[in-house]
Amino acid sequence: MSSISIIGTGNMAKAIGAASLKGGNTVEILGRDPGKAAALARALGDGATAGTWGATPTGDIVILAVLFPAAVPVVTEYGDALADKIVIDITNPFSADVTGLVVPDDTSGAQLIAEAAPASTHVVKGFNTLFQPIVASGRAVDVFLAGDDPQAKASVSAFITSLGLRPRDAGGLNMARWLEGAGLLEVNLARNGVGFDFSLGVNVGEPK
Amino acid sequence: MSSISIIGTGNMAKAIGAASLKGGNTVEILGRDPGKAAALARALGDGATAGTWGATPTGDIVILAVLFPAAVPVVTEYGDALADKIVIDITNPFSADVTGLVVPDDTSGAQLIAEAAPASTHVVKGFNTLFQPIVASGRAVDVFLAGDDPQAKASVSAFITSLGLRPRDAGGLNMARWLEGAGLLEVNLARNGVGFDFSLGVNVGEPK
Repeated sequence: MSSISIIGTGNMAKAIGAASLKGGNTVEILGRDPGKAAALARALGDGATAGTWGATPTGDIVILAVLFPAAVPVVTEYGDALADKIVIDITNPFSADVTGLVVPDDTSGAQLIAEAAPASTHVVKGFNTLFQPIVASGRAVDVFLAGDDPQAKASVSAFITSLGLRPRDAGGLNMARWLEGAGLLEVNLARNGVGFDFSLGVNVGEPK
Repeated sequence: MSSISIIGTGNMAKAIGAASLKGGNTVEILGRDPGKAAALARALGDGATAGTWGATPTGDIVILAVLFPAAVPVVTEYGDALADKIVIDITNPFSADVTGLVVPDDTSGAQLIAEAAPASTHVVKGFNTLFQPIVASGRAVDVFLAGDDPQAKASVSAFITSLGLRPRDAGGLNMARWLEGAGLLEVNLARNGVGFDFSLGVNVGEPK
């Protein structure tokens, strides 16, 4: 069981919040608009609460479920309130035409978020490769992760497992750029009508 | 039925050559070492031939199955012999530690290969996200493609379908960088013992 705080009141906040509660975790919703946060907490039910914007989140794991343009500003605004927290960055820093990333070529949204956060905050990239309908569907799929702190990744992996999803470790936070690129690929594949299944060949049999 | 020329005599050349023949395509093997090319053609059997290095390939589709460091030099050496051909770039331009790409940040191996090829050559990125054992296994998986010429992508897609694999269009050649990044992700996921299945949510049901 993990204690989860979700910064954001949009579709991903709703889908991850509902899945988190179903998985037996506690959920706190944080929104700049207290009314929206309270409304989402009510809609989620099952003990979900609305927290105070900018105050230290109650969750050990904080899910940053805002659009990328808001991500670094929000983390900067929260500042020390995120000290010692695990922050899951689910954002996709797509360019307007969704063929590239808006972040510099030698970094990633997740790394920029880590730079904006306190030194004691552990940022883990994850969920950006999952479309909201997939999270909402409850289908067991893989959640790719990237992060530098093994303990933080272990905590996030336990949380992901509680959702009935499969944590998949892609390596250090320097791999976050490629996870953001994978999100970009998915959107472009989807534009061409594609849903897919592929395998690394580690499990060549039917997906577990 | 497609006529395929494969430049290279390694594991991917062997796996793609065998799958191509099984799919009813003709296969020509091209190797700088004529002995190796002849040996692979013999090993493949089923009418596979060994062509003359540097001469115009007999195949309408030329599969560049060499390691990335050799790819641009080989395409440059072939020069006009690749005019009007469709070239499938299956290479992965990984850095030594396999956490980045050796190509400049604003391009991809496939784009560098296209720049080195005649203007009439259509370069399609593909197969770089498939490990050789997967191609050899015959399991129906997705083959992600990127390329600028719709007709060339249609020809490559028909070829991929003949292999019992699923062509998946990721967009223009400017998406090749992200396919190369996806290859990078796969290696790092595999390093962590991961095989996976994921879905865009376009087909949420069991994989076809």
